[in-house]
Amino acid sequence: MREDTLTKPPKSLGRLEELVAFLAHWQGHAPPRLERTEVLVFAGNHGVTAQGVSAYPAEVTVQMVANFSAGGAAINQLARAAGASLRVIPLALETPTADFTAAPALGEAEFIAAVATGYDAVEPESDLLCLGEMGIGNTTAAAAIAAALFGGGGERWAGRGTGVDDAGLARKRDVIDHALARHAAILHDPLRIAAACGGRELAAILGATLAARRHAIPVLLDGFVCTSAVAPLYRLRTDTLAHALAGHVSAEAGHRALLDELNLKPLLDLNMRLGEASGGATALLILRAALACHTGMATFAEAGVSDKPADESAEPKAAG
Amino acid sequence: MREDTLTKPPKSLGRLEELVAFLAHWQGHAPPRLERTEVLVFAGNHGVTAQGVSAYPAEVTVQMVANFSAGGAAINQLARAAGASLRVIPLALETPTADFTAAPALGEAEFIAAVATGYDAVEPESDLLCLGEMGIGNTTAAAAIAAALFGGGGERWAGRGTGVDDAGLARKRDVIDHALARHAAILHDPLRIAAACGGRELAAILGATLAARRHAIPVLLDGFVCTSAVAPLYRLRTDTLAHALAGHVSAEAGHRALLDELNLKPLLDLNMRLGEASGGATALLILRAALACHTGMATFAEAGVSDKPADESAEPKAAG
Repeated sequence: MREDTLTKPPKSLGRLEELVAFLAHWQGHAPPRLERTEVLVFAGNHGVTAQGVSAYPAEVTVQMVANFSAGGAAINQLARAAGASLRVIPLALETPTADFTAAPALGEAEFIAAVATGYDAVEPESDLLCLGEMGIGNTTAAAAIAAALFGGGGERWAGRGTGVDDAGLARKRDVIDHALARHAAILHDPLRIAAACGGRELAAILGATLAARRHAIPVLLDGFVCTSAVAPLYRLRTDTLAHALAGHVSAEAGHRALLDELNLKPLLDLNMRLGEASGGATALLILRAALACHTGMATFAEAGVSDKPADESAEPKAAG
Repeated sequence: MREDTLTKPPKSLGRLEELVAFLAHWQGHAPPRLERTEVLVFAGNHGVTAQGVSAYPAEVTVQMVANFSAGGAAINQLARAAGASLRVIPLALETPTADFTAAPALGEAEFIAAVATGYDAVEPESDLLCLGEMGIGNTTAAAAIAAALFGGGGERWAGRGTGVDDAGLARKRDVIDHALARHAAILHDPLRIAAACGGRELAAILGATLAARRHAIPVLLDGFVCTSAVAPLYRLRTDTLAHALAGHVSAEAGHRALLDELNLKPLLDLNMRLGEASGGATALLILRAALACHTGMATFAEAGVSDKPADESAEPKAAG
């Protein structure tokens, strides 16, 4: 295997080596490629914002979509830095989901339509997909999904999102606990949880993750919302996320616990909490570094470097 | 301040925002620049290899320097990926240091010469410096320095380096403990510790770090050996490393404890343990991502995005 012949001690590039093996496994060829990499950002609006769960008004969702189009958001800069194309897909921004403390956020048909939008957005020839979202109020939806799937209630899963104060955080916790009570009858069904507590952009991320699996495209997940969006798949069958990497662990309160529940080990831990696929796109830089080493390094034979253990040449006899 | 006007919740880019502020502080201008970034890799040989403390023979140091020149090592690929130039500076490879279990590794004049080589290698106009090393046997030297500065002996600081087995690790621990006993008389003096237990490439890293401070150039440190090389400066005065960032925490056993002693929080944790500035160069990608966001993002005003708190538009009244 090429990796073992490169001019470095075995395994000394740590996760960089594992990443190359992961990409090669899913892409089905070695070395893997990172030529066609795409960032998909889905956007949606949330009726639960009426409960005062966000530090920003709901209009910011559509304003930020315009900012993505104009190239002014963080993800525009990060996608460019990581050599990835960026596509932003707004989902019925003029029609927020229902307030899920009172009704399911999405009806079955609406949920399936959003999943299909995500599924169809994936380019089958992609080498790698970064998934992300924008949607004022969606950390509350994400926390409700995580609570419904893994237990612990608002106390365990609510965080400050874009920056609510203590009173706002207390409201978020209450909203989540109310939602769990309201939807108690469907808590055994991961996909009905995704519809009842989620949102269109989360459903689209779920659909895109399924499409990536169908086409054997590795996926870089982003933060808490993106991870919650795909968590129902894990609940259905634990290996459905085997093609996904956690790009980072965010500063949003529940993310580390959620990654633990999903057995995902984040690549980065930089206290980011922006969403927009920002953590995943940053992590793509690490994948590129890994691949650059794998494809560019000389082998021991090419470089004339000894790969003999020291005990064939040193005195006193060395061990390894 | 520009950072607070960009289209994202305040502080939501986490350490990326802190990195930009750090670079601007040391460079003395905002926004900071990453145009002239340089990786300096110093190489040296170690008499202590006679004790069987490495998995590779000492000849590998000179072979790897040739590999650096030919462009075949990991650091060649990583420096290119990070947009940094690379300079490799071998220090008297034909003259290993003395075996420090029997004598000081370097005499005073040799130590000062190596420090001066590192000091003089720094280009005063650099925007950022990544420091690294190559030297078979040098994790033993690094562990001896850390033990001499911070206590705990070979048990606390010896690791597997390039990959010694259990017997080799036991020998490393013994070698370190013997060195501490041999040099007991100078353990109060950080610079004499650096000379007695270190090596030329470590001394050069110390010198380069001093020169970077003189010219207010931010520094990205690499793994255990690089961090041990500069630790004596911290022992002299804790703020001497204020211009340095820990690029990563390596898999080498003592590195996390050493970073804790130096109050350095690593940017990456990817289980790497190669040296050569590989962790620092990978971390430079994160700095570039941070700067790309800072300089490329639109402000709220430019993008027409509301930065008003939700409590001016949402019902019921939101908190912040």
